[in-house]
Amino acid sequence: VSTGASTKRIGLIGLGLMGLPMGMNLRKAGYPLTVWNRTASRAKDLVEAGAILAKSPQEVAETSDVLLTMVSDPPALESVLWGEGGALPALKAGSVYIDSSTISPALVQKIAKACQKGGIRFLDAPVTGGDWGAREGNLVFMIGGDAETLKEVQPILDVMGKRFFHLGPNGAGQTIKLAMNAILALEVGAVAEAIGLVTKAGLQGEQLLEVLQSSMGRSGLLDLKTPLMLKGDFKPSFPLRLMHKDLGLALDLANQLGVALPTTAAVREVYNHVKGEAKEDVDYSAVVRFYKN
Amino acid sequence: VSTGASTKRIGLIGLGLMGLPMGMNLRKAGYPLTVWNRTASRAKDLVEAGAILAKSPQEVAETSDVLLTMVSDPPALESVLWGEGGALPALKAGSVYIDSSTISPALVQKIAKACQKGGIRFLDAPVTGGDWGAREGNLVFMIGGDAETLKEVQPILDVMGKRFFHLGPNGAGQTIKLAMNAILALEVGAVAEAIGLVTKAGLQGEQLLEVLQSSMGRSGLLDLKTPLMLKGDFKPSFPLRLMHKDLGLALDLANQLGVALPTTAAVREVYNHVKGEAKEDVDYSAVVRFYKN
Amino acid sequence: VSTGASTKRIGLIGLGLMGLPMGMNLRKAGYPLTVWNRTASRAKDLVEAGAILAKSPQEVAETSDVLLTMVSDPPALESVLWGEGGALPALKAGSVYIDSSTISPALVQKIAKACQKGGIRFLDAPVTGGDWGAREGNLVFMIGGDAETLKEVQPILDVMGKRFFHLGPNGAGQTIKLAMNAILALEVGAVAEAIGLVTKAGLQGEQLLEVLQSSMGRSGLLDLKTPLMLKGDFKPSFPLRLMHKDLGLALDLANQLGVALPTTAAVREVYNHVKGEAKEDVDYSAVVRFYKN
Amino acid sequence: VSTGASTKRIGLIGLGLMGLPMGMNLRKAGYPLTVWNRTASRAKDLVEAGAILAKSPQEVAETSDVLLTMVSDPPALESVLWGEGGALPALKAGSVYIDSSTISPALVQKIAKACQKGGIRFLDAPVTGGDWGAREGNLVFMIGGDAETLKEVQPILDVMGKRFFHLGPNGAGQTIKLAMNAILALEVGAVAEAIGLVTKAGLQGEQLLEVLQSSMGRSGLLDLKTPLMLKGDFKPSFPLRLMHKDLGLALDLANQLGVALPTTAAVREVYNHVKGEAKEDVDYSAVVRFYKN
Repeated sequence: VSTGASTKRIGLIGLGLMGLPMGMNLRKAGYPLTVWNRTASRAKDLVEAGAILAKSPQEVAETSDVLLTMVSDPPALESVLWGEGGALPALKAGSVYIDSSTISPALVQKIAKACQKGGIRFLDAPVTGGDWGAREGNLVFMIGGDAETLKEVQPILDVMGKRFFHLGPNGAGQTIKLAMNAILALEVGAVAEAIGLVTKAGLQGEQLLEVLQSSMGRSGLLDLKTPLMLKGDFKPSFPLRLMHKDLGLALDLANQLGVALPTTAAVREVYNHVKGEAKEDVDYSAVVRFYKN
Repeated sequence: VSTGASTKRIGLIGLGLMGLPMGMNLRKAGYPLTVWNRTASRAKDLVEAGAILAKSPQEVAETSDVLLTMVSDPPALESVLWGEGGALPALKAGSVYIDSSTISPALVQKIAKACQKGGIRFLDAPVTGGDWGAREGNLVFMIGGDAETLKEVQPILDVMGKRFFHLGPNGAGQTIKLAMNAILALEVGAVAEAIGLVTKAGLQGEQLLEVLQSSMGRSGLLDLKTPLMLKGDFKPSFPLRLMHKDLGLALDLANQLGVALPTTAAVREVYNHVKGEAKEDVDYSAVVRFYKN
Repeated sequence: VSTGASTKRIGLIGLGLMGLPMGMNLRKAGYPLTVWNRTASRAKDLVEAGAILAKSPQEVAETSDVLLTMVSDPPALESVLWGEGGALPALKAGSVYIDSSTISPALVQKIAKACQKGGIRFLDAPVTGGDWGAREGNLVFMIGGDAETLKEVQPILDVMGKRFFHLGPNGAGQTIKLAMNAILALEVGAVAEAIGLVTKAGLQGEQLLEVLQSSMGRSGLLDLKTPLMLKGDFKPSFPLRLMHKDLGLALDLANQLGVALPTTAAVREVYNHVKGEAKEDVDYSAVVRFYKN
Repeated sequence: VSTGASTKRIGLIGLGLMGLPMGMNLRKAGYPLTVWNRTASRAKDLVEAGAILAKSPQEVAETSDVLLTMVSDPPALESVLWGEGGALPALKAGSVYIDSSTISPALVQKIAKACQKGGIRFLDAPVTGGDWGAREGNLVFMIGGDAETLKEVQPILDVMGKRFFHLGPNGAGQTIKLAMNAILALEVGAVAEAIGLVTKAGLQGEQLLEVLQSSMGRSGLLDLKTPLMLKGDFKPSFPLRLMHKDLGLALDLANQLGVALPTTAAVREVYNHVKGEAKEDVDYSAVVRFYKN
């Protein structure tokens, strides 16, 4: 444990599949940590590891030099920032705020503006790598914001991730993240359509997968997801409802910018159809269900 | 050169980007070869290498134990098989006919029926690997048809390919090929949409590519195609008009089977739009042009 | 009954929902009529009305001055024209051939070429108006071909239809017909999506319909189809499988021409999905089933 | 002028293409009227007609028994309700608030909740009929909210509209409005695709229109829009950017409810593409530009 690192007090809001292991890594590195989660019981392991459980996002913000948020969607973030007992008005001038949720670039701008007024330095820093990456501390961070601010918090990010892309001013991190998730959703959607086609034609999806892996079309994602799609094992690693939400954010951005994304729009409705029929939380690879008619 | 191999006389119809190097490999392996191409001048190198140039598909068929066709689309194949001076009626009972073009499973069935009447053994055997794979003799073959027939011609296929998937009865090869090309078209289409989005948002596609290569979304195809898409280098490796045709064949099959492919249908119209505006032959990665408005 | 009209001997191939009442109107007008249908029993009423039942399309063609075909799709037409006992080679020079099936403009060109070789004058003349229009003799004809030929057969067409649009050379009739059916499929598909939306939101489709009829969005088609969609009464007036086929023909044409039709492509896959799940023949308004999840 | 009517003081926020003529009709009927618009100069005619121009939305609210808002989109409405000098906190208990903008049912719920807290009665009451309908006082209102409240303000609505549909509780008006606009957008989009197809095939859109008007596909909307589409006259009657926005709201609702709308999603991206390329404000019928490649 580096003693230098422990001089900054960190606040963490959001202890879901991602936030909880990220917090554990912060504690392992010795950072003083205050946390808050809508469902307080999620904080149990962190409190045992020495974190302080606050009563509100506001209380987290008041006691932190660096605030980190990791929540499920834009409304959840707006609520913890500006709702009753919200964090943002309580942040001190000179503090740093890092958001690792996946949200719209429009909300990034709104946050950036509010931070600027309050003398707070802000980074949008969504991640990829899944819950496994969060536990192992090898997430990939996509970062928008000021380079000097990033340099200052780099030691903190280092305990959670292994690769860091500084992509531009505020909004750049989220924009690249949304673009990447649209690609992932389409890759998995493409394989789902192909499985639907060959299955209906009387062949097995396994045959398609075997050939695909011998071709240029092979990918790490498909190696991971296709066998689960063929088995029908949809335990959520990245929940379909979140992928569906991210596709909506990508399309909102595209529609604001006036760039048409017909293929992304088509696949979003397929995810939506499966979401509408799902009785439980499923992984986004469950998109293959659309084709099993 | 194996002398055993040279006992079978091979006929090859279609000397395009793929057929020509496939023929060269057959000659290098010592097979007696008769060829035909709509534009006879394409046969020059093969004739110098010892192949005989026939006057019609029919003449090729008459002098061959094994006939191989490699043409651009279903109408071209129907023309060389059943048009004036067509090959199919001239094939001898007991001969083997292998088609490596990409065509519809419906046409496969029509050919299979005609072959069965004439006592001809037929394999549908489309390939992947591009012109580079054809030159190096390491194509991947997706094969539908009788296992014994395949065993008999395996030595011949071995000089052109490195991997061989026997996928089922006639039609299975084409079905898997169409499914795979739909996946490739969607992967490239997905990256094109993402490039369009981040570019319009003021970022660079190169940034997206760099992050993507650090993620599960990385793939051999994208490593190869994305840099060319970013440079705007669309020299045809696999022409867009052929990928667009294959998407049409995949959708025809899906629509016969009653399995909806909304994402494939969406991306096909994007390829179509780019095809409609293209002034010259371009690679299918030129689909990115749709997003440069 | 005009005696002048009865001088031309008419042949009619295809006695389905449309062809049968068209034939009855030809008999009522006094025309000598020879007919053929794949299922011969469909000819019963016509034979009682004085028509002669032929043994093959060829026999129909041999005894006719004017041949009319009205079959379900392009393969069915190719079969009656060029299959065993096919009609086209048997048509006499100087005769007129009118096709009222809905087929591709590409097939129109193939037929036109064959007719030209044989000295036969050819009109593509698809219709709209449904089985009710066929019975009442007030179909709308969309016609491609030579104006003088049309003038010559106008008295014959007059007993089947009430409006006649001469739209250009061969192919023009089918092109306008396909464009029109794409519009009808999208209008009904649009209402189906809207019904799906308001129903899921807890409102009734009847409310939407009532408001729609008060607005510029009202249309004859929707007045007719929406109540049936809301009741779930899908007795086929125009079968979904035929509308789905016509959408495929429209998209084939668009993809040959290089004009992208993303909305038509999207709705086709919705029709396809419903077709794939339907257990029986249903009207195309059954597309609304997609949204009842 | 009815004197009874003049007892209620009305506030009107938003003096655009729709709001201005609606205000003029309120004045003609003798209602005391206070107005506000972001661009104050738009109020000129109303002030001449006796309306009072307020300095802020708040001032309008303070002096009104009935508040009416008619602005372009959800952010504009949130701004006039809750921004600096916003109207909603200034509304008196017992007053009535009617919103005739087209917004999301989610925002309707947020407004309803705030109104309930303040003892304000709220109706969502979007309209159809265009600027022409607004001038003539024959708009169609789609209304969600309490029946008694509606009864109370009916005399006021009567001077602006001719048909009134009470569709259910708050949100019902907007839901039906969004569904209806999705239908209109798809009808015009359908004709645009068909015009694109026949034009590329060498025919004239006028021919298609003529045939269409003879068929069940005819509609008031197409009679109005198609000639302008064929002429290329895109003077905004209903601006494309607003139709595009409404399609986004309809899809947001559908994606919250889990009902997939693939055709609406497809046409939205076509509108988006045209919006992205447009240099000026155009009518939504300009969607036809997509097909003129």
